[in-house]
Amino acid sequence: MNNHLPPDEEHIDTNMVKLEVNLDDISGEVLGYVMDLLFEAGANDVYYTPIYMKKNRPGILLQLLCSQNVLEKMKRILFTETTTLGVRYYPLTVHRMERTYTKINTEWGKVTVKLGLLHGKVVQRSPEYEDCKSLAEKHQIPLKTIFQAVWKAMEHKDS
Amino acid sequence: MNNHLPPDEEHIDTNMVKLEVNLDDISGEVLGYVMDLLFEAGANDVYYTPIYMKKNRPGILLQLLCSQNVLEKMKRILFTETTTLGVRYYPLTVHRMERTYTKINTEWGKVTVKLGLLHGKVVQRSPEYEDCKSLAEKHQIPLKTIFQAVWKAMEHKDS
Amino acid sequence: MNNHLPPDEEHIDTNMVKLEVNLDDISGEVLGYVMDLLFEAGANDVYYTPIYMKKNRPGILLQLLCSQNVLEKMKRILFTETTTLGVRYYPLTVHRMERTYTKINTEWGKVTVKLGLLHGKVVQRSPEYEDCKSLAEKHQIPLKTIFQAVWKAMEHKDS
Amino acid sequence: MNNHLPPDEEHIDTNMVKLEVNLDDISGEVLGYVMDLLFEAGANDVYYTPIYMKKNRPGILLQLLCSQNVLEKMKRILFTETTTLGVRYYPLTVHRMERTYTKINTEWGKVTVKLGLLHGKVVQRSPEYEDCKSLAEKHQIPLKTIFQAVWKAMEHKDS
Amino acid sequence: MNNHLPPDEEHIDTNMVKLEVNLDDISGEVLGYVMDLLFEAGANDVYYTPIYMKKNRPGILLQLLCSQNVLEKMKRILFTETTTLGVRYYPLTVHRMERTYTKINTEWGKVTVKLGLLHGKVVQRSPEYEDCKSLAEKHQIPLKTIFQAVWKAMEHKDS
Amino acid sequence: MNNHLPPDEEHIDTNMVKLEVNLDDISGEVLGYVMDLLFEAGANDVYYTPIYMKKNRPGILLQLLCSQNVLEKMKRILFTETTTLGVRYYPLTVHRMERTYTKINTEWGKVTVKLGLLHGKVVQRSPEYEDCKSLAEKHQIPLKTIFQAVWKAMEHKDS
Repeated sequence: MNNHLPPDEEHIDTNMVKLEVNLDDISGEVLGYVMDLLFEAGANDVYYTPIYMKKNRPGILLQLLCSQNVLEKMKRILFTETTTLGVRYYPLTVHRMERTYTKINTEWGKVTVKLGLLHGKVVQRSPEYEDCKSLAEKHQIPLKTIFQAVWKAMEHKDS
Repeated sequence: MNNHLPPDEEHIDTNMVKLEVNLDDISGEVLGYVMDLLFEAGANDVYYTPIYMKKNRPGILLQLLCSQNVLEKMKRILFTETTTLGVRYYPLTVHRMERTYTKINTEWGKVTVKLGLLHGKVVQRSPEYEDCKSLAEKHQIPLKTIFQAVWKAMEHKDS
Repeated sequence: MNNHLPPDEEHIDTNMVKLEVNLDDISGEVLGYVMDLLFEAGANDVYYTPIYMKKNRPGILLQLLCSQNVLEKMKRILFTETTTLGVRYYPLTVHRMERTYTKINTEWGKVTVKLGLLHGKVVQRSPEYEDCKSLAEKHQIPLKTIFQAVWKAMEHKDS
Repeated sequence: MNNHLPPDEEHIDTNMVKLEVNLDDISGEVLGYVMDLLFEAGANDVYYTPIYMKKNRPGILLQLLCSQNVLEKMKRILFTETTTLGVRYYPLTVHRMERTYTKINTEWGKVTVKLGLLHGKVVQRSPEYEDCKSLAEKHQIPLKTIFQAVWKAMEHKDS
Repeated sequence: MNNHLPPDEEHIDTNMVKLEVNLDDISGEVLGYVMDLLFEAGANDVYYTPIYMKKNRPGILLQLLCSQNVLEKMKRILFTETTTLGVRYYPLTVHRMERTYTKINTEWGKVTVKLGLLHGKVVQRSPEYEDCKSLAEKHQIPLKTIFQAVWKAMEHKDS
Repeated sequence: MNNHLPPDEEHIDTNMVKLEVNLDDISGEVLGYVMDLLFEAGANDVYYTPIYMKKNRPGILLQLLCSQNVLEKMKRILFTETTTLGVRYYPLTVHRMERTYTKINTEWGKVTVKLGLLHGKVVQRSPEYEDCKSLAEKHQIPLKTIFQAVWKAMEHKDS
């Protein structure tokens, strides 16, 4: 059983939690590093928001989404790697669409496209960034050209 | 019965929910459009926050407040109009003041003022923006002059 | 002669100026109104940035781009509509690509696409937002579907 | 019994609440004042986030963390001092590390350092800002020099 | 001769400069302190903007406005108090309105109002924050009530 | 002769330029990619700021610092990789401190520290991030512990 890889069928996940920490005594340099650590340790998402804190301090709100079973692991990283003395959290529900993958042939090469299905119908098409980036670098052309080529090559029967 | 128009008496609403989506593969142009759609569909509020996401991406956190009974409708719009594959949400409580309206005569014309009452006492006076804007445009004077004229004309007996 | 409509050929414009105002004693409501006024009066662009000001104040930096010949008009609006007592500005240079327009037929209807040419070669294709929005509303489909349909219908010979 | 001074041992506090208010019709000047009021009235933390609201308004999200027993007091301040007609809130859990204090002798004078302990082990050392600031002002040297001197003088046996 | 107190008549100041520093290896705590230092040393304005820097770092752009004759003093503070190795700057022009002051009697006490005149006509009225704050604290009433009382008591003949 | 590697002596560089582009029709995903491209092509710094643009669009201000001799190269990347039709720029002056490097022995290994000298006196000490990161990963300890160890090991004779 693995909670880090949620099933690809459409489902409602009631097992998620959001952690938050306000930070005003740490540098952006360290925060760039901490984000990577948290992703590697199994966070579903990590993001920073600029906030205005007391005494004219430009601070950062660190937010992190993870499943309940890695909560303690995340708290440990936050306590040891950042400068906080407290971590707050609350549960939340996540509705995830069904996901499936398809390969699209463009004039520059193949790109995987992630499809999102709502009640069995495709409503989302997301070209994989890393594929597009590789082709852009290989052919020395703009990244946006690859994205546009993917849209051009795709069938739109079902949306 | 209409859940979109909460009663004007002071009340505690335990029927509200906040939805959140992190977005890094959509343009601001589309997000401006989506905000309007969500308001039209019955959202109580919609707002965007700039966030720092992985791989150096400037992203947007979309947040939306609505009553539980339009939750599915909001999720559908988010899934079909944005690029997300998942939507998260959690319940919250809202304490709303009693609201009532009064008309204020200024030298430039009438302006509706929304009054907020806490335990029966007026603590909030909010000139209606659209009224003030109309007068500013009609008389070709600064908007701030209209707001100041409203304050000037108002009675302050009860605050 | 009309300075508001720069020529559509590629050119270097040395006649532009940026104005800036820091604001901490005005509401967002008024700022939304002021942005419209400035665009109507001929600003090339107007945008707001959240800034941290003294005494723990979340402020706004208003920035405005315009040609030198409307500088006085812009200053007047800033002085009368906002709460500032001073406006700062400095000249800047703008390199603009050649612009031309084309019509694209999609399954949902026609969309104008603005083309940007650098040294005579198309490097930019920008579907007109208002066209896409109209089609999305008319056919009651997601805006992103229209954008994708435009990419699909477009020829990519020259990029 | 005093809920404003949580015990210094490591503990999980399930008695906390977060309040939120969206504001688009108030100035940054007033918000700087309101932050101080809320801290004085017993808020554990207060912070502002810049948000994008409807009608092109740069708004502010006020967030406030407090224990349940001062919730009504906080709501009252928000209703009377800001321009909002509603306040939303939801409970959250806080995991706080054990805290203890030590004095560090630097070449510039003594500085209190707050220690954070996780499961009895020091993982956090935070020089008190006000102490460092006083020494920087007294000796007319950069604040960062004081912080560096504290790190230099500290023992690192246990981390 | 004193460049820190520009004359109160309307004038165009061509003697100003803006300094900028990007910071990703300093804490918000120190930045709150540095802002005060810079104001004390004669900066006309200092403000921070949240920026996205390389390697996923949430950084801060420090901007500072001052007259040319304190440029070296400002550079020295930036070099010694922040973590930067370089400071950039460019000249700008400031158009300042004529300023004069008046006293307004409200039901709560006197408040100084700063008037801004454009070509001899009052277009700006700004109640002094510190006066309003003192009255709010003395009478234990909301700050916004004082501001509204000032608008009520003011004459609007000339705008 | 190489303009990308400015001399390590203290100097005033009058050969720099700042480029700016406002973007509301591009995704954060592409912007993360573009930042890397611009650094690789010789930009001294690239950073993004969240801005409020017309029609309720959350946009991004891209700013780029480079020397005059790579200006055309930077413009080309901005035109081909982003969605803009115009690029604006203006010259600025940069005062850079003298830079030198030293090696510090900590209990965890060696760390290079960059020193900044103003008029021949060390006022800046900046431990190299990549060195600290390597040691943190190698020894599986918090990054902040490495930074603190560097401060501890450093001599402070000259500041």
